[in-house]
Amino acid sequence: MSRVTADMTITLDGYGSGRGQSRERPFGDIDPDRLHAWMFDHREGNVEEVERIVEAGSFVMGRKMFSSDEGEWDLEWHGWWGKNPPYHAPTFVLCHRPRPSIEMEGGTVFHFVTEGIDAALARARKAAGEKSVSIAGGVSVLNQCLAAGLVDELRLHVVPFVAGGGERLFADAAGVELVPVSSRTTPHVTHLVYERT
Amino acid sequence: MSRVTADMTITLDGYGSGRGQSRERPFGDIDPDRLHAWMFDHREGNVEEVERIVEAGSFVMGRKMFSSDEGEWDLEWHGWWGKNPPYHAPTFVLCHRPRPSIEMEGGTVFHFVTEGIDAALARARKAAGEKSVSIAGGVSVLNQCLAAGLVDELRLHVVPFVAGGGERLFADAAGVELVPVSSRTTPHVTHLVYERT
Repeated sequence: MSRVTADMTITLDGYGSGRGQSRERPFGDIDPDRLHAWMFDHREGNVEEVERIVEAGSFVMGRKMFSSDEGEWDLEWHGWWGKNPPYHAPTFVLCHRPRPSIEMEGGTVFHFVTEGIDAALARARKAAGEKSVSIAGGVSVLNQCLAAGLVDELRLHVVPFVAGGGERLFADAAGVELVPVSSRTTPHVTHLVYERT
Repeated sequence: MSRVTADMTITLDGYGSGRGQSRERPFGDIDPDRLHAWMFDHREGNVEEVERIVEAGSFVMGRKMFSSDEGEWDLEWHGWWGKNPPYHAPTFVLCHRPRPSIEMEGGTVFHFVTEGIDAALARARKAAGEKSVSIAGGVSVLNQCLAAGLVDELRLHVVPFVAGGGERLFADAAGVELVPVSSRTTPHVTHLVYERT
């Protein structure tokens, strides 16, 4: 069965997203350029970690990761990533309202799953084949998966500043225990890998 | 001038102490044996990090680190550490009410400082001589020092479980930025070192 992985960039105080998320500001009051500088501005020092993020055979994400709004779908909205999203694989969006799948350029197909995380993971595993399934976020979906013990490998990318508020990793995951696997410090980010107990 | 260091053991979700601290439960609802298993049960794999904690020439701690209560002092209370505390050096306790210094066995002398963190640090630096000054905790004093940019080297020891509540490191320290220096994963704890920008 496919291994389930998750990557998340968090601040020193554990926030994966700031306050006040919107379409214009998907990370709320955290500057996304600062949060992700390690991937873009300093990619050369972090190539392996960046490449591992999108090596999965399929992805699962929450609705807020696809679209910050709630309620009725705006069918014109195809996510933040332009015509050719970086996933290049089937991507299952957890949501409460059905919507037709969207085939993007480069192999990303967004499927909308209303039956919950277990159903989304089952479909993602089938789509991934021999490859892993990645929980692409956002924070609340990842917390839900961590609390339910669904994540085999968690890869955290800790950026060295304090956000002060927002959506915090491990909120609502009291009692979860993981196994520390590895860590690597670069000048702009610390990579931490944990596995399920 | 003495370098200011700080060590703190925190959970995956950043808590250095749990909810409901008292003399009987200095870490509240976090089991201290579990929090500190890396230092005691698994000391052999973490000798260097353990020894660095107490190599400072003097220490600064908050009142809650010395005594969980508030208000008038109970002069019979000499801390949690027995007759021979592990500090073996002058230790300056930040508090609001004066109290005579207490000379313990093994070199630890508790001094009670009512003039605030800057005064405590000045006295600690003088006492430390060529050695470093360590902020011994608790969480709120360390957060105060981090927010004020007083910590030259922060050594975090991240234990791999989620507490779910308590006193959180980096709370009230929004905007603080640090420089990642090193990381080391052991089976029971991840050691992270940061420096001041």
